[in-house]
Amino acid sequence: MPETNRQVRLKSRPDGIPQAAHFEIVDEPLAPLAEGRFRVRNRFLSVDPAMRGWVSAEANYSRPVGIGEVMRSFAVGEVVESRHPDYAVGEHVMGLFGWQHFADSDGRDVVRKVVEADLPLSAALGVLGLNGITAYCGLIEVGQPKPGETVVVSTAAGSVGATVGQIAKLLGCRAVGIAGGPEKVRLCLEEFGYDAALDYKAERDLRGAIAAACPKGVDVYFDNTAGAISDAVLANLAERARVVICGTASVASWNPPPLGPRVERQLLVKRARMEGFLFFDHAARFEAAVAQLADWLRAGRLRHREEILDGIEQAPGAIAGLYRGENLGKRLIRLA
Amino acid sequence: MPETNRQVRLKSRPDGIPQAAHFEIVDEPLAPLAEGRFRVRNRFLSVDPAMRGWVSAEANYSRPVGIGEVMRSFAVGEVVESRHPDYAVGEHVMGLFGWQHFADSDGRDVVRKVVEADLPLSAALGVLGLNGITAYCGLIEVGQPKPGETVVVSTAAGSVGATVGQIAKLLGCRAVGIAGGPEKVRLCLEEFGYDAALDYKAERDLRGAIAAACPKGVDVYFDNTAGAISDAVLANLAERARVVICGTASVASWNPPPLGPRVERQLLVKRARMEGFLFFDHAARFEAAVAQLADWLRAGRLRHREEILDGIEQAPGAIAGLYRGENLGKRLIRLA
Repeated sequence: MPETNRQVRLKSRPDGIPQAAHFEIVDEPLAPLAEGRFRVRNRFLSVDPAMRGWVSAEANYSRPVGIGEVMRSFAVGEVVESRHPDYAVGEHVMGLFGWQHFADSDGRDVVRKVVEADLPLSAALGVLGLNGITAYCGLIEVGQPKPGETVVVSTAAGSVGATVGQIAKLLGCRAVGIAGGPEKVRLCLEEFGYDAALDYKAERDLRGAIAAACPKGVDVYFDNTAGAISDAVLANLAERARVVICGTASVASWNPPPLGPRVERQLLVKRARMEGFLFFDHAARFEAAVAQLADWLRAGRLRHREEILDGIEQAPGAIAGLYRGENLGKRLIRLA
Repeated sequence: MPETNRQVRLKSRPDGIPQAAHFEIVDEPLAPLAEGRFRVRNRFLSVDPAMRGWVSAEANYSRPVGIGEVMRSFAVGEVVESRHPDYAVGEHVMGLFGWQHFADSDGRDVVRKVVEADLPLSAALGVLGLNGITAYCGLIEVGQPKPGETVVVSTAAGSVGATVGQIAKLLGCRAVGIAGGPEKVRLCLEEFGYDAALDYKAERDLRGAIAAACPKGVDVYFDNTAGAISDAVLANLAERARVVICGTASVASWNPPPLGPRVERQLLVKRARMEGFLFFDHAARFEAAVAQLADWLRAGRLRHREEILDGIEQAPGAIAGLYRGENLGKRLIRLA
């Protein structure tokens, strides 16, 4: 076992999207494992849009990562040492283990044990992890789609969006994707099976294009972007529509909140609902969600993409790249 | 029986709030009653903020009132002639009978029969009608308040708002009202029993005043105004808050929608919900709501105010007056 633990720590607090310069890489000696804890050797680190919020000083759903602290992130790895009765050496676990090679845990930061030994370990961070569970719980529990309804998804080719679109199809809905650029639109149509896909960068009248793609209106909008894309979707809501607010990727800064068209009248007239979704609130459904997603994956009914970067040195600049839209698939850092 | 039916008809389509000049008063001869219909002699006509939307050309939840048509409104009266098996002469009915002395109906525009013979007939349009039912169903079914939670109400001294505030108290919640002017604030505190009331016209920092009045955050916001008042409330939401969008009284025109701070991030971070409420969607609950409201009324646990204008000639200018905030209580037109 190596004697040091390479970590990515937050060096300064970003105003907006975190860049590589906001982090530093540090080698920390590994201390002896304390009683009641176990040690995880991380195999894959996750890179997620939500991490922008985790380092923001603005009011958020969790305490901001402190300056000098290891960057909070999901990771998956194996238990390499244990002084905890519930975790045995050799088990695989997924949780908030941070951007580092080794994490000592008392179990509270574990999301789940990874029991799908027949599936690649990396899937536990994407289609069977944060992204897949977010798609599944957000769409089904908050969006409550019914067969025949129209589901619109923003960042439709992304790790969450592509899963939402495919689940919508599996549930018998019409799925319409919104993505940026012809390559992502092609992915939506050819790989993820959307009924229609719109390129928001190319459409001169996105609102009209959505209306044409959703002739009966939008019953469920799974919103990963906020901003102008959402304005165009909200103008096309069907009666009793449900808007799942899952992410705000298109808005660079919320301090102060930018201005946009007021939504109250449209929500009233359509008796529509907007509701924020947060992964951590749905822990009671994680195992059921993963079991269903894994079944679909094994049956070849659910596709997913990964973009794997090698080495923890890739991590600091990896969040900003997400916001530039440069990745095609779930972005992961593979550790040796 | 008189031979003519005095009516208020829509003369021109307002851009914004309807004024007296948008209507005309016409005397129409009464035709013989057709088979399958009954005739109501209206005793009270309702004046409601929602009527602005009913004459708007903008997309709405109902067909706009046509030029030359009798103004749509709630009214209560008695059946004076019937060729319909379900309605007998002498029964009292409340429904969309319009701003006129007599309405012929096939029953589809009836909201309910008024069976509370021990209570004033006018109450069937206010605390036992649109306003009370809206308050009851909107708060309980959409807002879902739990004992100990904090409920904030805008237009807190109004016909809907005052009922919401009192129901919140009856359910064991903390009730905080927002109203315009010292007289309405006094009413909130002394007559309707709010725990706190804020004058949005006098507060220099409404957001901070709401924070001070709601130390644990706002669990339910019953929104009758939209606009800047709502912005101040939304900044103070508790986790899992529910926002009931019931009216948009503070916004003069929605064509195009005015700009305001984007809500997506706040809804996401707080996992909060905003949802439009429309009276007509809750018909299955009307009788249960009225029965409960009537019980509270008889027990002296629910207060309400009426402002009665005499004569149908008062109707055309009566909507604009609501938006000027000149009434203290449910505005009604009494017919001779």
